Amino acid sequence: MENTEALTAHRIDPDAPEQDDIDTYRLLAEDIASGAAVVATRRYGRDIAATVTGFLDVSYDPPTMLVSLYGDGRIGEAVSESEGWTLSLLNGDHRGIANWLASPANPVHGLLSQVPFRRAPVSGAAVIEGAISWFDLRTTAVHEVATHLVVVGEVVAMGTTDDSVGSNDPLIHFSREYRHLRR
Amino acid sequence: MENTEALTAHRIDPDAPEQDDIDTYRLLAEDIASGAAVVATRRYGRDIAATVTGFLDVSYDPPTMLVSLYGDGRIGEAVSESEGWTLSLLNGDHRGIANWLASPANPVHGLLSQVPFRRAPVSGAAVIEGAISWFDLRTTAVHEVATHLVVVGEVVAMGTTDDSVGSNDPLIHFSREYRHLRR
Repeated sequence: MENTEALTAHRIDPDAPEQDDIDTYRLLAEDIASGAAVVATRRYGRDIAATVTGFLDVSYDPPTMLVSLYGDGRIGEAVSESEGWTLSLLNGDHRGIANWLASPANPVHGLLSQVPFRRAPVSGAAVIEGAISWFDLRTTAVHEVATHLVVVGEVVAMGTTDDSVGSNDPLIHFSREYRHLRR
Repeated sequence: MENTEALTAHRIDPDAPEQDDIDTYRLLAEDIASGAAVVATRRYGRDIAATVTGFLDVSYDPPTMLVSLYGDGRIGEAVSESEGWTLSLLNGDHRGIANWLASPANPVHGLLSQVPFRRAPVSGAAVIEGAISWFDLRTTAVHEVATHLVVVGEVVAMGTTDDSVGSNDPLIHFSREYRHLRR
């Protein structure tokens, strides 16, 4: 049922985007709703973790996921150079943890000292207590995409944390805020 | 704040996943909440479109997104072989369209005959009327990931449809259902 009236469009030359193009894109891309998760790995015996919204279930045969991380950041370097990492799907009570692990100013030391977690069985990376579901992954590919690294991994272990069975309240990110689903 | 108690984990050998591993993964992966969108392209002058939840904003410099599509499906073939495609972010009133375009049995002919749409300015692919935001993309890379193709594209045009300005009601997919955000 085509309407032939032209759309009002903001055009971009991707080879030379201007600041106004980037600002407009960021505003429109805020309309992408997504679950919030924590990605974590270990490096030199230290825990590294960050809140992410850019992750996907890709395939179930074999179970395969991906996460998109800024290439020049601590977490992007750590995950893309690691052999193993975790994703913990956050629930509606995890807003404080989500904010803490999204802060660019959070410390390298003691990052998880106030965050309840256990360790995933294969990678040893952190699994956030209360995660709706968690996945322990082994990296199979890293793709450079503009400023980001898309890290692909196969699931080697997975589960729910005990207190999350039947949870129906994922933490959702939309329009720069954390939100809940309507019941 | 590490709890050293072991997690109850379902382990997988990704080189030889068994049906039980796949079933368990699919159940846990249902806990990934995501916005719903329609990906569309044109092929041999015909419109091809499907509901997707596996898409991401990757980078804003230049504005870059990706979509994950089953490699052997009509939409996966069409988008990965196309030069241009669109993403339309669905709103809460789009549930009927989301169900229609998610059905594997929908027809090749007349797929959009009951779906109001306009055409994106560069690719000419469909933009769903009422989309919260829409993006017109030019493919820059296609990555094979297990059973799927991850198609990466740069944004060449974007916008909102007139009646969607200020919409605060994205259509969310969670646990095999379409849901709304709590206000």
